[in-house]
Amino acid sequence: MTDESNGPASAMKADLETITSLAKQRGFVFPSAEIYGGFAATYDYGPLGVEMRRNIRESWWRWMVQGRDDVVGVEAAIITNPEVWRATGHVDAFTDPLVDCLNCQARVRADHIEDGVCPNCGEKDNFTEERDFNLLLRTSIGPVADDGAVAYLRPETAQGMFVNFENVQSATRRRLPFGIGQIGKSFRNEITTQQFIFRTREFEQMEMEFFCDAADALDWFEYWKTERMRWFQSIGVRQEHLRLRDHEQEELSHYSTATADIEVNFPWGWSELEGVAYRGNYDLTAHGERSGKSLTYFDTEKNEHVVPHVVEPAVGVDRVMLTLLMDAYDEDVVGEEKRVVLRLAPDIAPIEVGVLPLSRNEKLVPTARRVWDVLRPHFRTWYDDAQSIGRRYRRQDEVGTPLCVTVDFETIDDDAVTIRDRDTTEQIRVPIAELVTALRGRLDELRPTVDDPPAMPGR
Amino acid sequence: MTDESNGPASAMKADLETITSLAKQRGFVFPSAEIYGGFAATYDYGPLGVEMRRNIRESWWRWMVQGRDDVVGVEAAIITNPEVWRATGHVDAFTDPLVDCLNCQARVRADHIEDGVCPNCGEKDNFTEERDFNLLLRTSIGPVADDGAVAYLRPETAQGMFVNFENVQSATRRRLPFGIGQIGKSFRNEITTQQFIFRTREFEQMEMEFFCDAADALDWFEYWKTERMRWFQSIGVRQEHLRLRDHEQEELSHYSTATADIEVNFPWGWSELEGVAYRGNYDLTAHGERSGKSLTYFDTEKNEHVVPHVVEPAVGVDRVMLTLLMDAYDEDVVGEEKRVVLRLAPDIAPIEVGVLPLSRNEKLVPTARRVWDVLRPHFRTWYDDAQSIGRRYRRQDEVGTPLCVTVDFETIDDDAVTIRDRDTTEQIRVPIAELVTALRGRLDELRPTVDDPPAMPGR
Repeated sequence: MTDESNGPASAMKADLETITSLAKQRGFVFPSAEIYGGFAATYDYGPLGVEMRRNIRESWWRWMVQGRDDVVGVEAAIITNPEVWRATGHVDAFTDPLVDCLNCQARVRADHIEDGVCPNCGEKDNFTEERDFNLLLRTSIGPVADDGAVAYLRPETAQGMFVNFENVQSATRRRLPFGIGQIGKSFRNEITTQQFIFRTREFEQMEMEFFCDAADALDWFEYWKTERMRWFQSIGVRQEHLRLRDHEQEELSHYSTATADIEVNFPWGWSELEGVAYRGNYDLTAHGERSGKSLTYFDTEKNEHVVPHVVEPAVGVDRVMLTLLMDAYDEDVVGEEKRVVLRLAPDIAPIEVGVLPLSRNEKLVPTARRVWDVLRPHFRTWYDDAQSIGRRYRRQDEVGTPLCVTVDFETIDDDAVTIRDRDTTEQIRVPIAELVTALRGRLDELRPTVDDPPAMPGR
Repeated sequence: MTDESNGPASAMKADLETITSLAKQRGFVFPSAEIYGGFAATYDYGPLGVEMRRNIRESWWRWMVQGRDDVVGVEAAIITNPEVWRATGHVDAFTDPLVDCLNCQARVRADHIEDGVCPNCGEKDNFTEERDFNLLLRTSIGPVADDGAVAYLRPETAQGMFVNFENVQSATRRRLPFGIGQIGKSFRNEITTQQFIFRTREFEQMEMEFFCDAADALDWFEYWKTERMRWFQSIGVRQEHLRLRDHEQEELSHYSTATADIEVNFPWGWSELEGVAYRGNYDLTAHGERSGKSLTYFDTEKNEHVVPHVVEPAVGVDRVMLTLLMDAYDEDVVGEEKRVVLRLAPDIAPIEVGVLPLSRNEKLVPTARRVWDVLRPHFRTWYDDAQSIGRRYRRQDEVGTPLCVTVDFETIDDDAVTIRDRDTTEQIRVPIAELVTALRGRLDELRPTVDDPPAMPGR
């Protein structure tokens, strides 16, 4: 949900239409199956979008799993045993309240009606009774489409960590506290999809369940709030566009005793980007009861079996991507010309280094290709020789490429090239022999500064 | 399908039971939601399995997309406009022939019955008539579960490239020949699942559609066959376990005029690992006709619009993973002890470097942790201090870790550690200051040798 009542107006320069159009034109995000008129709130990611998503996932995985000594990963199936969703209550109670407008027949979420007015036709106070609509997507597995074969597309990746708790623990011999992280697609039959890739039926989550002693759980909750804000620093989201907001008592899920949202200040209001939830021991207990297996951890100090408590930071790749595109969008003036520039951090930008021969002149091309071959093993590169060099710089600015290398006629004599900086538009001359080092150095300088890590509870 | 009649008996030392058990015990592959008794032919990947899958995907992406100047990527939605699957014929004709056994009521694939015997109960020649069973998984999107809302889970990633052909081409201004690659989950309601993760309902594909001129298409088909075999070399699959087999005329799909399989010699027979298919211009033509959009490419030399032809190399992450586990499995004798060792290539092994303090002695731990901190930014590492050093070496051998670093009491005096080699079990002493360089050098030596690349058609 968004909230326009609170905090300063958004400082973002982009509006959604600008970003949607740039994203399509430059190959970040396409409407899914657009040749068939698209498909409700579904998107396909183009060449630059894929590279950006890969970078987001890679950054999260290194920050949350590979870079830590207390977290390991899993990849669970999207369609698994439906008992999982019965245990958690999703089959019975994962619902939105819906009403039908008696004037236009539109089906809308009851909690999305403002002042009793139908968001579709504007009719006031003319709705059916509220009824619950389940958000699980159903399918049927096996050769016979009967009730016994019903299965669900997972609505969250989190349960993949809970149901594998015991197998992970015994395979890795982990002691508390430790976490299990996962990146993968989830599906919810959302009635109200909105704001481009912000809320879609198919989305990609990055979730981590951190298992710990009940006594330390609230300390870990505080730790993870800080740690997750640091991750957003590390990928270059401007701090003034973010806030951390603790849930009020009445906002909390039934299983949670403390939750905080990391919110982003979009032009349409503060919106949930990530949730950090203290889930108690709700999930392991529920699965333990339904499966009849004891999902516990043997605490050698207490000499007893305990059900670990859990803190969960959960965020979506798609929301992070939209946040980064909106946050990084800038317009400034170079010389007398207005330009659009995406100020993406180097680790997030789809292309790190653009390789641009001054022209398609046959003397330049072999050298430009040779320079490209030198760079390709070290950086995400893009070769572009179409149109004027000025237009190509603008194109690279628009997709957030931090550095461009230009091969010109002097290069043939001096074996040197020009490095052009996205943010300053300054150009420096560098021998090809020193190019990889020079580019690496400049990319390092462009990496965002990150606060010192918070202390870990109990260490 | 597998074929036991042809070629030499498998040279693999592993059988499926051994690999299934090792995979579960060591955290590669778990039965999905095992606490609920699992779920038909569905698997969850554990901590080491995820790292291995990440490595497989990364290797494919670099080889097929990032490392090339003529291929870009997409990530299309799993659930898209159902018109896509009507155009391709999947809705009408993506079927397997099924029969019911009149004795035991089992529903089985007609083409899987050998000598007329039911594979479930052994009854002979006692089946219902054959009927077609559609393999698409269906779901329903939106608030009303009527026919208009039916959608399908994609049975292949390939169509995501075809329906985005125009958007990709216009965003990237590509000229023929060029390819579009994708990694992602697909779903087929397979009746006969088999051999662990070899055939499952939910699986992950790595596919690339290479668009070219019709006149060059068969040359590109030959090129991609060679190039794909080279990839399997690069990830360390032993060449004697693979073969390239051209399809006979009667095996070809209706849209293909030439297809080759890369097959792997499992203990149960030669099995399809990857398909390289020359698809003609079937898909773009079909989508062009159904959508009414002209999916063509303007050939500036011929001065006309053409529908490009397509060569498609397509492989599954899960099959590659099973192949690598089976292929790499070895047993040998060290000293007087039998050991199990996975001879995985360094870029595929979940762990590159194990860090093992000789014991949990309090003098060793801080040094071991310091060594680990030095290595972690450079390698995929694992810290293990449980049980005897000999058992820990065996455990790392069993999961394919090429190198282990041991911190012992001498380390405290000489600031040096031991590097222990998985394959030779040899140990060398290296100063901690030189450790990263030494490990990197040794990992480079362990990388598989790859044949020279084939010449590209028309260049």
